Amino acid sequence: MSKIMPLSGFPEWLPSQRLIEQEIIGRVQRTFELYGFAPLETRAVEPLDQLLRKGETSKEVYVLRRLQADDGESGSADTGQRDELGLHFDLTVPFARFVLENAGKLQFPFRRYQIQKVWRGERPQEGRYREFYQADIDIVDRDSLPAHYEAEIPLVIGDALGGLPIPPVTIQVNNRKVLEGFYRGLGIEGTEDVLRQVDKLDKIGPAKVAELLTGQGLSAAQAERVLALAEITAPDSGFADRVTRLGVSDPLLDEGLEELVRVVDTAVAEKPGLVVADLRIARGLDYYTGTVYETLLRGYERFGSISSGGRYDNLATAGRDVFPGVGISIGITRLLGILFGRDALTASRSVPTCVLVAVNSEEERPRSVAAAAALRRNGIPAEVAPSAAKFGKQIRYAERRGIPFVWFPGERDSVKDIRSGEQVDADAATWTPPEEDLRPVVSAAV
Amino acid sequence: MSKIMPLSGFPEWLPSQRLIEQEIIGRVQRTFELYGFAPLETRAVEPLDQLLRKGETSKEVYVLRRLQADDGESGSADTGQRDELGLHFDLTVPFARFVLENAGKLQFPFRRYQIQKVWRGERPQEGRYREFYQADIDIVDRDSLPAHYEAEIPLVIGDALGGLPIPPVTIQVNNRKVLEGFYRGLGIEGTEDVLRQVDKLDKIGPAKVAELLTGQGLSAAQAERVLALAEITAPDSGFADRVTRLGVSDPLLDEGLEELVRVVDTAVAEKPGLVVADLRIARGLDYYTGTVYETLLRGYERFGSISSGGRYDNLATAGRDVFPGVGISIGITRLLGILFGRDALTASRSVPTCVLVAVNSEEERPRSVAAAAALRRNGIPAEVAPSAAKFGKQIRYAERRGIPFVWFPGERDSVKDIRSGEQVDADAATWTPPEEDLRPVVSAAV
Repeated sequence: MSKIMPLSGFPEWLPSQRLIEQEIIGRVQRTFELYGFAPLETRAVEPLDQLLRKGETSKEVYVLRRLQADDGESGSADTGQRDELGLHFDLTVPFARFVLENAGKLQFPFRRYQIQKVWRGERPQEGRYREFYQADIDIVDRDSLPAHYEAEIPLVIGDALGGLPIPPVTIQVNNRKVLEGFYRGLGIEGTEDVLRQVDKLDKIGPAKVAELLTGQGLSAAQAERVLALAEITAPDSGFADRVTRLGVSDPLLDEGLEELVRVVDTAVAEKPGLVVADLRIARGLDYYTGTVYETLLRGYERFGSISSGGRYDNLATAGRDVFPGVGISIGITRLLGILFGRDALTASRSVPTCVLVAVNSEEERPRSVAAAAALRRNGIPAEVAPSAAKFGKQIRYAERRGIPFVWFPGERDSVKDIRSGEQVDADAATWTPPEEDLRPVVSAAV
Repeated sequence: MSKIMPLSGFPEWLPSQRLIEQEIIGRVQRTFELYGFAPLETRAVEPLDQLLRKGETSKEVYVLRRLQADDGESGSADTGQRDELGLHFDLTVPFARFVLENAGKLQFPFRRYQIQKVWRGERPQEGRYREFYQADIDIVDRDSLPAHYEAEIPLVIGDALGGLPIPPVTIQVNNRKVLEGFYRGLGIEGTEDVLRQVDKLDKIGPAKVAELLTGQGLSAAQAERVLALAEITAPDSGFADRVTRLGVSDPLLDEGLEELVRVVDTAVAEKPGLVVADLRIARGLDYYTGTVYETLLRGYERFGSISSGGRYDNLATAGRDVFPGVGISIGITRLLGILFGRDALTASRSVPTCVLVAVNSEEERPRSVAAAAALRRNGIPAEVAPSAAKFGKQIRYAERRGIPFVWFPGERDSVKDIRSGEQVDADAATWTPPEEDLRPVVSAAV
């Protein structure tokens, strides 16, 4: 028998932390709904060959088999790997599949959010898990997707994360057309190889990246300008002039610059300080074709992006059906793992209970049960004491869990605020606690 | 490449159905919190040998492997099956493991709820899935657990399911001590074999069960009384006299009757009509040792129980640490699958959006974005039209999704209720919709 112990990479929170996680997810969800995104969940599994369409991620996938898959049904051994199932490693690939599968039943443009766990067999480290929550929004349309949706995404994320008791965030934006157009304008072929090297800037610095680029066949002048572009960053549309001054010209570059200016201008108008154009952001070799996003948490920049995404034109495509989209994902577990690791979030109590109803004697328990029922009818979370112990012990039950009130059934009932010690007569049918005591309050730890 | 198609047993809802599922889960969760249950989630995976402790379920488990588990870390091939992981098939086994693992950090008695997906490799059929949601509550204590908690569970489920737009439910209760004590008092050995046959009553009827029992070595008189006990059902504690009149006496039987009377009496006092004592309910060969519960949905009895559970004394046990518990699980996906299959639930719209903000021209889009932002600041879900098409087309965008209001920015803004056609001047900073239009309303279809 395996020892009972934690599994590395599969985090489990204690109830007080789960309470915080639920509050965070609930607030993010309410923001997504304020923007009109409809809820969606997809199954946890996808056919393995669908998951492996992007060869880069193959090593991360968990493959499933039924312990006794021997009953001749489809999906068993003889049909081979084609029908094997794997756990999804993100929510974008399943969403693209869902759109293709249900296109006839959906209204386009289709705005959906999706908050689910995903699994990756990566080596665990701080902020990197094998099982974790992602909270995604995407907007897809049939045939073509207006660029204004690329400007909307940062506003949603700004509201969603800005409404949480966490440090402020900065959303870094770039546009793949700017990078590809600029490289093309420089006469560089194989923009993907260049992107791959530029992605290493944070890790190895510009000198090493320049070496790699020239090693790849770029001239020193080309490499220098690739790096000059990557150095450009601005909190407003001023970045565009700086790009132009680098003297490269290409129609795709112009198109990308125009789109990126729109994203930045919209953010400056609606949420000043939220967005920064950063022309180094590339999002690796992912499926993005337009705007790309990464999000840093102030004071925790070294942990990397907590919310990333971009525009994709070719992900949900089957024959002549094309559904371009734009989306972004918040790494909920990553965010919480980082903040929990520093005790940066706190809940005012570890249970939902607002009132513990004391029990005078086991014979009188039905009376306490009835008082608790009356409180619940008014929306007040209440539980009944586990035993008719001395009141001191019953009060300690509440104290240890942070329950603020203890109710005493009597000739006249009374309720005690165990923080102040104040006790008053009360009627369970009409009493209400102060609004701020009704539910646990989640806040940044001071 | 595998064809894009549904996977049997892995249901996926359209957004309007997911919206209903979310509302149902949210209401169940709020009821659990009203009773002071704390939130918990456990990882989706458990070590395979933990999952197989109950040999009966081994055939249902999905086993995981990493597609490229070749990097020498623990959990790879050479450490063998001991470290293999499987997807959990219920929430009770993981919860018992969590309690043992974290006993030092939890407050006992510990009340928790847990709403998660579980996976079983069973052959799919209506109401039976390979991936489905369960909503569980459990109360565990250290060393011993007072019997009054067994009487509390049906009240919680009565409130949780009674608050949903679904047909009324009946909770059938029995007590394993009644069955085992009665059989023992009859001089029968091997009560599990008897339970297994009694469990078949619904399927094959009493005559066949009597045959099986005598075939197993029971006398005709013993079999007759086993069946007489199974026939007893009552909406109140009257069942106890009927059991006593069968003339069997045993201390365990008496203990079980006393506990069952308490469960029924509590329900009669608090929620008349909710609970029925039914002495046929056995819950198979599960780990239950006291009260057991099954729940039928009126008009859908043939689909079997939608919420089952019971008391268990030996599930969370490690050496001298014993954590007896009582719990119950609502089969959320099963319930929804049955009701969706009959179009028995409906949502007033398919998106959260309350107001679509029209766009006069693409140049004026920022004005519409600002109006939508103002509405959201007051908690009103709003989205901006996808294009500056003719207003008729923009209104149809709202109509097709059931969005009730369209907002028109102008010299003075105005808002149109597209159901009535009424249009009035309005200020986005102060306008509010009727309360019932703010969010989609989920109700029973008429």
